[in-house]
Amino acid sequence: MKHTVSFLPDSIAVRVAPGENLLTAAALAGVYINASCGGNGVCRKCKIELVEGELHSLKTSCLSQEEISRGTRLACISTVIDDVTVHIPEIVRSDGKALRSKPKTTRTISNKSFEQLVGNWVIAPPIRKLFLSLPPPTLDDNISDMQRLIREIVRSSPEMTEPDYDHPELIHELSATLRESEWQVTVLLLQGKLTTEPERIIAVEPGDTTDQLYGLALDLGTTTTGGVLIDLNSGQVIAEASGYNSQVGYGEDVISRIIYAKRPGGLRALQAKAVYTINNIIEEVCRSVIISPSDISYIMAAGNTVMAHLLLGIDPQFIRMAPYVPGVSKFPLTKAAALGIMAHPSVRLFLYPCIASFVGGDIVAGVHACRMHKSEKISLFIDIGTNGEIVVGNNEWMVCAACSAGPAFEGGGIKYGMRASSGAIENIHIHPETLDPMIVTIGNTNPRGICGSGVIAIVPELLEAGIIDRRGKFIDSRKHPRVRQGGDGWEYVIAWSHDTMIGEDIVITEIDLDNLIRAKGAMFAGYQTLLESVGLGFADLERVILAGNFGAHIDLERAIAIGLLPDIDRDRFYYLGNASMLGCQISLTDYNRFRERTEVRKLMTNLELSDNHNFMNYYMAALFLPHTDASLFPSLAPPSD
Amino acid sequence: MKHTVSFLPDSIAVRVAPGENLLTAAALAGVYINASCGGNGVCRKCKIELVEGELHSLKTSCLSQEEISRGTRLACISTVIDDVTVHIPEIVRSDGKALRSKPKTTRTISNKSFEQLVGNWVIAPPIRKLFLSLPPPTLDDNISDMQRLIREIVRSSPEMTEPDYDHPELIHELSATLRESEWQVTVLLLQGKLTTEPERIIAVEPGDTTDQLYGLALDLGTTTTGGVLIDLNSGQVIAEASGYNSQVGYGEDVISRIIYAKRPGGLRALQAKAVYTINNIIEEVCRSVIISPSDISYIMAAGNTVMAHLLLGIDPQFIRMAPYVPGVSKFPLTKAAALGIMAHPSVRLFLYPCIASFVGGDIVAGVHACRMHKSEKISLFIDIGTNGEIVVGNNEWMVCAACSAGPAFEGGGIKYGMRASSGAIENIHIHPETLDPMIVTIGNTNPRGICGSGVIAIVPELLEAGIIDRRGKFIDSRKHPRVRQGGDGWEYVIAWSHDTMIGEDIVITEIDLDNLIRAKGAMFAGYQTLLESVGLGFADLERVILAGNFGAHIDLERAIAIGLLPDIDRDRFYYLGNASMLGCQISLTDYNRFRERTEVRKLMTNLELSDNHNFMNYYMAALFLPHTDASLFPSLAPPSD
Repeated sequence: MKHTVSFLPDSIAVRVAPGENLLTAAALAGVYINASCGGNGVCRKCKIELVEGELHSLKTSCLSQEEISRGTRLACISTVIDDVTVHIPEIVRSDGKALRSKPKTTRTISNKSFEQLVGNWVIAPPIRKLFLSLPPPTLDDNISDMQRLIREIVRSSPEMTEPDYDHPELIHELSATLRESEWQVTVLLLQGKLTTEPERIIAVEPGDTTDQLYGLALDLGTTTTGGVLIDLNSGQVIAEASGYNSQVGYGEDVISRIIYAKRPGGLRALQAKAVYTINNIIEEVCRSVIISPSDISYIMAAGNTVMAHLLLGIDPQFIRMAPYVPGVSKFPLTKAAALGIMAHPSVRLFLYPCIASFVGGDIVAGVHACRMHKSEKISLFIDIGTNGEIVVGNNEWMVCAACSAGPAFEGGGIKYGMRASSGAIENIHIHPETLDPMIVTIGNTNPRGICGSGVIAIVPELLEAGIIDRRGKFIDSRKHPRVRQGGDGWEYVIAWSHDTMIGEDIVITEIDLDNLIRAKGAMFAGYQTLLESVGLGFADLERVILAGNFGAHIDLERAIAIGLLPDIDRDRFYYLGNASMLGCQISLTDYNRFRERTEVRKLMTNLELSDNHNFMNYYMAALFLPHTDASLFPSLAPPSD
Repeated sequence: MKHTVSFLPDSIAVRVAPGENLLTAAALAGVYINASCGGNGVCRKCKIELVEGELHSLKTSCLSQEEISRGTRLACISTVIDDVTVHIPEIVRSDGKALRSKPKTTRTISNKSFEQLVGNWVIAPPIRKLFLSLPPPTLDDNISDMQRLIREIVRSSPEMTEPDYDHPELIHELSATLRESEWQVTVLLLQGKLTTEPERIIAVEPGDTTDQLYGLALDLGTTTTGGVLIDLNSGQVIAEASGYNSQVGYGEDVISRIIYAKRPGGLRALQAKAVYTINNIIEEVCRSVIISPSDISYIMAAGNTVMAHLLLGIDPQFIRMAPYVPGVSKFPLTKAAALGIMAHPSVRLFLYPCIASFVGGDIVAGVHACRMHKSEKISLFIDIGTNGEIVVGNNEWMVCAACSAGPAFEGGGIKYGMRASSGAIENIHIHPETLDPMIVTIGNTNPRGICGSGVIAIVPELLEAGIIDRRGKFIDSRKHPRVRQGGDGWEYVIAWSHDTMIGEDIVITEIDLDNLIRAKGAMFAGYQTLLESVGLGFADLERVILAGNFGAHIDLERAIAIGLLPDIDRDRFYYLGNASMLGCQISLTDYNRFRERTEVRKLMTNLELSDNHNFMNYYMAALFLPHTDASLFPSLAPPSD
């Protein structure tokens, strides 16, 4: 259920969810409102007039009673609760011509296309519970306790093979459990790796606990780790949690952690931090639904190659040195408790296999989730984070690569860059005449910095306002207080210190732009190199699938405008969200889809770009906005009239 | 190569191995020599005359130079080095009629029959080693180290499935091992449980170690544990060791250990002792051939149900209480190091499955070794130790039972009983007229006590000498200093204190005899009950297979004479030795024979005797020498003239 927000005088409408901030709605619609404080009602610049419908606005002393009664509101502290029409006053909107509407963003990709991509999954998890009422032993029937249990399991499902069983946790407790529960127990059975393998009894619980069957999906990121708790009886997500990866203290990126792992005790310390991070997630999801960590019966996880190595305590050092060889690519099914994870000793932790040192299990999980391996359509899968990983292919072949794009899209290498958290500028419009920005921050607070989507947003705005050229260099003919020489050379002031949370001007510098251009250039060169390696071009791409948090917040047009994404039919773009987590969730719920992961892994071939001559050439050519080869971006060409 | 020893004047000959003690040879031949000190040349009673050939005799001051030069020797300190004829002087041999020869003993069962029983096995162990020279990684071929290893293994044997691998010991070290060894490694592969399962890489060693492939067979006895080290490249036994089970300090028998296990920390203490015992064996065998414990690549073990439970740390307490239920009967393949066993972390410990609380893996291993499950012949398998376990059956069915015979055959419950070790009286002949015994001790030293075979030997001697009646009661009309009332009632003095090592008279009491009769009665009632349960009788038995150390030392005729073994054709008796160890050795060497163990386990059905009405009746009837039903022992009937 969404509401329509219409902005006068240009009658630009946008549909947003109830509770959406009006400033955000304006940004989404591409409507400029002078709003430089990020939105907590102090700068008073973002006044608008309510024409029709209702807004929910916080009380503010910045507006007089008279202003309020005639419909004046501050956009930054107003939220949408109904269909509404607002008028942007002249004082704010000085030049109607410049305030053209922007096309819809990737956010508007419909849920229908998501479903097309991901397909259905059924509730058929890798584990199941079975309640058994065993006949107590007698002198005529005194087979061992374990045999008795197995006999009853086989009786309950006559077609099944005799299950195997777990050692040693299970057998140590079995006799006591059976007797204390008066022979009424629930067994937890784990499916075999192959369909021909027997099931495995991994736990025996007193009484009937069949209504409690939970699984945890884990996305092990370099920076943040997320967990989703699923009720495997219903298939429903019942709790979610996320937190920083505690390894951050040992290095921001994977390379610095690999280096740390070389120190005496370093690998062990990093493993302990990975476990600590996971345990925090487990505690949080369990607390929120009041279950015990030992009630979780299976963990499916995905992470990049280094995260997986560190979690399992495998030395990752050869990952960072040519020829970039991981120790292991197909990780063994591990007992979570053996790693120190807060779990019942029987609980298995599955880690998605990786393809190469820099194409990890998170990518395999993502490709698995969106079923590229099931579709004939040639797709480009893109996950942009610290490293950009890309996959091209379909159900017959796949090539993949990692582009060392650098962390610009996560705010790294940007002077005021920050992660996408409260106070981060995530959207920005620059008035082409006044050169003043309209900024939208996460949480609608005063700005603290600028995150990836903000960085992607600002570049086309600076270009269009004539502040920078297509090489990303400042044009010094633009005399304006916001365009100035700073300590790092030319810069544009996004927010003045009095409007920020940090008490300094927030700027974007020429060096920042250079980092961004190199990052997007590496990505684009990656697409070209991969496509060329299989004899294809952009025109052959039937789908472009954006994974990761990145995809959720960027404006598709702007990403194309800077040359980060290829300039093809916008209908071919799909947004998948946290694909790695999604893959884990699907695998946890539907074991048949889980088994398909092997197909994915076998289809994928890694291409090493670091030493690739073509890649270097493409990269050099891509260090331009959007590209030195304008023919690659036909839709951006100025009208030929 | 054996020598013939002829005893004059009766011309009784016996063939013995070189180095055999002359007294032992006489005992074997059933020739009486007055020898009451056990054989260390002090009592001077065992003088004989050398007639032909040579003896090796220790120097002694007990004989004059003149005696020696005319051929007088002391039997107890003379050993056979050649074919020899000796004359037993009149002074020793007072009544020729009584000194009839005894029939041959079970020792004389030929090796040929052993081979018939056990069959052949080939060198095809569950593990194998493979030397690989891997191509080092390049940028074009930078798959993970593990994948590289697996790829090379599959290349080496193209028909094989991709092997699985071990975690975590293996993957932690893999990258370093590969590089340190410059990509020249030996992989240790473990066969899957099913033939359809892939092999498993369990270790990777630098360089070429294919010539070092060792396995350990372990017999985990309640009292003693034995180990046999096998070179799995040649199939040869290269070292053996045995030692006391260190658990003895916590209780002599399994029941007292089960009780100890109930104490706080008791189970853990017993497990630690089991591990300690095994580690001693490992150290000893490794030291003797100068290899490291980590060079052992597989361990096959068998033990009774309680020993297996204690080793794995499974609570055994329900074993001793009706209805006598073990926790587990099919034990999981365990990593030895996880139990604390001194072994490479990859080494697997296999434990033979048990059938019931008192029919353990040692019995399954024994039956497996002698291939009862492959033969159409109906066989009775007997293992007499603290408990007597018996199995009847063939390749189509098997029933088994444990008879709580008590430890009499191991010297337990006998006043001067002891285990079969140095100083134990293992053979005895009583002169029917003088009532003096000729005793043979293990190690030919002064006696310290009497072991199982000695106990079995003395009873028919006491009977024949008219000292006891067929109920095992002393006949007090026999006035003789050796037959007297002691503290425990009637007793017979086997050795006077001045001839013993312990400084007291060694006697056998009426209570001892009672214990022995109950023990043999339980065994015999067991045979009858098992046979009856399948509608058979003794006449149907085509083979009687004696397992255990017990079988090695008893005199078949005497064992039948007291009613311990059934009175059937002596040619049907087979002696298997330590069948449990033999099963482990075969399984270790020949994996196809190992796989057959499952057939054995599935064929065997346990019959609980403790509450069995027929068993109780048979038992009561068997408390007689040899039996209250004389028709069961036709060969012992006095001539009908």
